[in-house]
Amino acid sequence: MLITANNPKIKSWLDVPNNSDFPIQNIPFGVFITKDDVITIGTRIGDYAIDLGALQQLNYFEGIELTDDMFMQDTLNDFISDGKKTWRLVRNRISEIFESTNPLLRDNTDHKEIIVCKMKDVEMQLPVLIGDYTDFYSSKEHATNVGKMFRDAENPLLDNWLHIPVGYHGRSSSIIPSGIPIHRPMGQMLPNGETTPVFGASRSIDFELEMGFITTDVNIMGENIPVHQAEDYIFGMVLLNDWSARDIQKWEYIPLGPFLAKNFATSISPWIVTMDALEPFRTKGPKQNPNPLPYLQQNGKHTFDINLEVIIKPENGEATLVSNSNFKYLYWSMSQQLAHHTSNGCRVNSGDLMGSGTISGPTPSNYGSMLELSWGGKNPIVLKDGTERKFINDNDTVIIKGYCKKNEVRIGFGEVANKLLPPFVRK
Amino acid sequence: MLITANNPKIKSWLDVPNNSDFPIQNIPFGVFITKDDVITIGTRIGDYAIDLGALQQLNYFEGIELTDDMFMQDTLNDFISDGKKTWRLVRNRISEIFESTNPLLRDNTDHKEIIVCKMKDVEMQLPVLIGDYTDFYSSKEHATNVGKMFRDAENPLLDNWLHIPVGYHGRSSSIIPSGIPIHRPMGQMLPNGETTPVFGASRSIDFELEMGFITTDVNIMGENIPVHQAEDYIFGMVLLNDWSARDIQKWEYIPLGPFLAKNFATSISPWIVTMDALEPFRTKGPKQNPNPLPYLQQNGKHTFDINLEVIIKPENGEATLVSNSNFKYLYWSMSQQLAHHTSNGCRVNSGDLMGSGTISGPTPSNYGSMLELSWGGKNPIVLKDGTERKFINDNDTVIIKGYCKKNEVRIGFGEVANKLLPPFVRK
Repeated sequence: MLITANNPKIKSWLDVPNNSDFPIQNIPFGVFITKDDVITIGTRIGDYAIDLGALQQLNYFEGIELTDDMFMQDTLNDFISDGKKTWRLVRNRISEIFESTNPLLRDNTDHKEIIVCKMKDVEMQLPVLIGDYTDFYSSKEHATNVGKMFRDAENPLLDNWLHIPVGYHGRSSSIIPSGIPIHRPMGQMLPNGETTPVFGASRSIDFELEMGFITTDVNIMGENIPVHQAEDYIFGMVLLNDWSARDIQKWEYIPLGPFLAKNFATSISPWIVTMDALEPFRTKGPKQNPNPLPYLQQNGKHTFDINLEVIIKPENGEATLVSNSNFKYLYWSMSQQLAHHTSNGCRVNSGDLMGSGTISGPTPSNYGSMLELSWGGKNPIVLKDGTERKFINDNDTVIIKGYCKKNEVRIGFGEVANKLLPPFVRK
Repeated sequence: MLITANNPKIKSWLDVPNNSDFPIQNIPFGVFITKDDVITIGTRIGDYAIDLGALQQLNYFEGIELTDDMFMQDTLNDFISDGKKTWRLVRNRISEIFESTNPLLRDNTDHKEIIVCKMKDVEMQLPVLIGDYTDFYSSKEHATNVGKMFRDAENPLLDNWLHIPVGYHGRSSSIIPSGIPIHRPMGQMLPNGETTPVFGASRSIDFELEMGFITTDVNIMGENIPVHQAEDYIFGMVLLNDWSARDIQKWEYIPLGPFLAKNFATSISPWIVTMDALEPFRTKGPKQNPNPLPYLQQNGKHTFDINLEVIIKPENGEATLVSNSNFKYLYWSMSQQLAHHTSNGCRVNSGDLMGSGTISGPTPSNYGSMLELSWGGKNPIVLKDGTERKFINDNDTVIIKGYCKKNEVRIGFGEVANKLLPPFVRK
């Protein structure tokens, strides 16, 4: 089936600002609350939020097999369960409806009033009910930097890293959308040079520049998905900030991995950009050496050229770009991650989230965490307002942005932006 | 409010076999499918399954504030959300209804036919939708044994172990009830003495004797629950088998913890025994030295005297008891685990599951895993049929049982029993 929605020549009858992340070629999926306090599934064109529930009720999806209330739900899980063919039919249909020469909705003022909202009037929600959240560790540069800092500068990569897309389970209950502020966590830490731990507010709150992908129902328990089929089960991608408390992490993580250092907050951008929309930006990943085991081997273009930026905005100061990276730097592809994840029969469901791990690149300006940017706090970075940062300060907002660009078409993710508040105090 | 349901003198008008885990003093909660293919919430007395949905429809809960369909659901999450007062009112009411001198239901043949099923006619389901699953590592004996085998025999406990109830995130999607068979997982492993990993069927499948507790809604994100309040948020307990593939685990777990070695299956017993039912078996835990940090300090009796057994049943062989242990051996209490888990503001919801970690005791017969029982495969154990086991063989069934006993009252958990099938083969 053709992805007609990707036609770069199409324009929408809705106004799309220059350099918008959301031209008519994007058509991401999300969930929002309208100004009438109705929760609905929607998409976005320019600075307009489109109510897909209303669009369905008014019969604009006629001819596509959908349950009656498919878009009148508060999560995308059921739609995602319907599979790739349905996703593509719906995305193509939305493209037709909003294409500049199509008068159907364009000239129906009553319908437009019901269907088209302004982004500033809606409140974005988490797009899916996330049953399980897995976070990988797939940037060779990031794993190398961490290894240099904490283990062996000469031999920074652990033995398994080049053979396994290393990953661990995160906590679904702490995943929040962009815009929700978080508290600096309290926790147990071992101060440098001490032998007895203390309990207090973390002093080294970090971001991790990541992206995440959302799956459809992949398998039944016990079955695996081969690497060459894995992409069919990926619905789309979001930006992800894997907030981390480095001092808590350092003390707790041996031998079972990060726990309270991570599960106080993970934030994601609210619009899921589909793999279909990202198709034109497909590219080759880094050469893998040694060759992975057969169940992880793949040829061709299995990653995507997605520019990434991290910005720190102090409470009353100017925003500063502190990192720019690219999704394509990752060593392990999403299909390798998913094939590995199901290689033991682990069940993966619709709405599950898989994080990439911190996406660092080859040069220091590409590093995806303060840990790496300030090299463990040794080299503070200076913001535009003249203040220094080893880690994130109270009332700083961390903003991650991401976009693809090719032949004048820009497909973006918007942003995930969250403010760090001081620790919670019980009243 | 009195826990009248715990009165040891009460007998039920339903027949309860000698030594049953489910006398009228137990009243656990679960979910089952009846022979008419209806899913309902229920309880159990002796070998009878009681349909609480039917009991509610027939007005037996009059006077207790419950939503109309509270027990006509396929999970206990909403009931658990209602909190401790409601749990106790319902349990006391069930106790009254089934008490031997109460003719109300006893003498109503029509109602009894609708409400009372035989256990052999129902199919037990997972009792809750588990949003997040955390597994702790709270047995000092287990952590010490593992440390001796894999790290430093002289200094087996890691530095953080006596200060932190160490835990990690497990995978909710792979949690299954007793009775569901599982496949031996495939995975990546590093054969002894080799430097290149291989992919194949795990050769060291293990059980881990654990218990788990189910929480109600504990907090909003960012807030913590103090240790002295934590027990109020625990609904009840189940038996848990944290199936593990030791060869996969050994190769993958550094630095982010166990992943595919664990997420192929975790099984639980289907009846949640309430903390109210366990109240008479409250006891003191081991002395904690060094004294934990203030946010983890508690005095008094915060654990429970629960006898535990592991049995291996080969396909055509006799069942052999391979381990007996006790929940009270655990170093960290459930309230300490929950206080620690929320100390950073991590949100904990109704239906979340927290595993104890392998429960080993002071003597080798108390060890809670094959890894410890066979000491890393060095000392195979001999089953009653004469066959040896270093780990679990294909077609073995692993059965975990648990019960408390005091003053002639026995409160039990039934069992979690799952068969290990050969690896899944794609057709």
